[in-house]
Order: sequence, then C-alpha cells, then structure tokens
Amino acid sequence: MKIIGIDPGTATTGFGVIEFERGHIKLLDYGCIETKAGLPPHVRLQQIAEDLEYLVKKWKPDEAAVEEIFFSKNVKTAISVAQARGVILERLSSKGVQISEYKPNEIKETVCGDGAADKKSLQKMVQLLLKLEKKPHPDDAADAIAAALCHASRIPLREAIKNQE
Amino acid sequence: MKIIGIDPGTATTGFGVIEFERGHIKLLDYGCIETKAGLPPHVRLQQIAEDLEYLVKKWKPDEAAVEEIFFSKNVKTAISVAQARGVILERLSSKGVQISEYKPNEIKETVCGDGAADKKSLQKMVQLLLKLEKKPHPDDAADAIAAALCHASRIPLREAIKNQE
Repeated sequence: MKIIGIDPGTATTGFGVIEFERGHIKLLDYGCIETKAGLPPHVRLQQIAEDLEYLVKKWKPDEAAVEEIFFSKNVKTAISVAQARGVILERLSSKGVQISEYKPNEIKETVCGDGAADKKSLQKMVQLLLKLEKKPHPDDAADAIAAALCHASRIPLREAIKNQE
Repeated sequence: MKIIGIDPGTATTGFGVIEFERGHIKLLDYGCIETKAGLPPHVRLQQIAEDLEYLVKKWKPDEAAVEEIFFSKNVKTAISVAQARGVILERLSSKGVQISEYKPNEIKETVCGDGAADKKSLQKMVQLLLKLEKKPHPDDAADAIAAALCHASRIPLREAIKNQE
C-alpha cells in the first residue's frame, strides 16, 4: 500500500510518499510544493492543486494522511493554510485517494512518543525509522513523512479489526 | 459580461449569477450549494467543487466575486469556511474565471451605502436594485448576489481606466 503524507501550507506544502507492505516501510519520494509570495491566492491554490495532481498521478497513493491545522496559530495564517488544505482534501478526494486526518500532536506522539516533540526530534525519528542516511529536509517535508508514518502505524490494527468482522 | 458572486461556506455556499451589459443588470440565477453536516470534510468539499463546476459550465461566468472571510468568527468556523473558500478559488481559477475578492463590509458599503448594514437591509437593497418581486432567500444567496453587484459596480471605472491607458 502506498501512502502520501501531506503537511498543508500556502507557501510550502510538504509531502512524503511511503510504501507499507507486510510491516516493511520504504520512502519513495518527499519534498515540498512551493508557491511564490505576492501571487494572488487563487493562483497559488491552483498551483498547489496541479502539483498535487502530478504527485498523485506519478505515485498512485492508495491512502493519504493530511495534517490538521494547529488552532493556536494566528487567525490570518490559519485561514490561509486552511484554504490550501481545502484544495488538498478536495483534489485527493476527487482522485479517489482515501483520506485520514491527524492532529500535529497525534503525529508527534506516534512517531516520537511525545506529542510536544520539536522539529529536530521529529526529523531524527523519521531518519531512524526509515533508515535514511541523513535527516529529511526541510521541516515541512519531514512533517509530511511523519504524517504518512503515523497513518501506516494505524493500518495493522485496522486490518485486524476488519478481519474479525 | 456575466458575473458569479459567491459567499463561501461548508454547509451553505451562496451563489448569484448576474449579467451586466451597458449599465443594465439582470439576475440570471441564485441559490445555495448545500452539504450535509456529519459527512467527512473532504466529501463536503468535493461536493462543493462539483456543484460549482456545474454552475460554471451552465452559466459560463466571465468573472467571479468571492466574499472574504470575516476574521472575528471563531477560529474553528473560520478554518472550516476557509477550506471551502480555497476549493472555490482554485476551481474558479482552473476553469479560467477571473477572480476578485471583496470584504463583507466592502460589499455592504457598496450595495447599501453602509458597511455595517444588517442582512435584512442587504436583502432589501438587492431586491430594489434588481427589481425583484420578493427579497432573495436565503441570506447566503442574497450575500452572493450582493458580492456580484459590488463587483459590477467596479467595472465601469476599471474599463474607463483601461481605455485611457
């Protein structure tokens, strides 16, 4: 199963694609969708949509893990991120990718064992879990990979419950 | 020129389509895109996208006027509305509709002459300006028509400036 993790943003949307098969996890791709400040919002949102569609076409993820918005951000930033997040959820849904949403602290708790872990710890744990030569950069890409890992960790239990039904 | 006005929301997105030609304004269509509470956000966002695409295909608007989010709303509501708004901006942009954004008080100021006008006054003014038999219902549809009227009011000046260049 292929999972795409997404950390939404207007300027920078992190993504990470992993393959999860019989307990083995492999990192296929990661990086950021970036849009230029100063462009009208609809132009930036359209670019995010198009770049995401390219990734979905390239990697054909079965499922997506999309990070929720941290509410204590200032309202203006939160609204801007939410607009990008709406586009991401809608495009993934329209392409038939099954979506799960995770809170930032839920992802950190799962990956680092600490819901308040800082960015460096998260990068380090992603590196260790995926046996990468170096820490994944930038932060947003590492956050997106962590979201995908968090989702992957839920799958064995979900499957077990399904098999019992 | 055809203008679609939009008042974004997750449960209810108001829309109004007007034709504006040589100083004459005609209301072509108005109403609401509604989505059911309790459905996952991505399902509701996809429905908004599909219904909006249907309206764009049907009416072929040249331009769109999209209402901005009123910042003093609570953050949770604002984020939900912003996700829908992001989808709306992206879909309109991808379909080649030229987009303008207006603040709620800017729309009320233009249509009612009072940036703090209440919903009833706005509905009444929309009815008077468009010579409708009754007030347009619901509020969200009236707000969307008002956004389109606000945009229409800017066009003569914009054209005059363009002709001078």
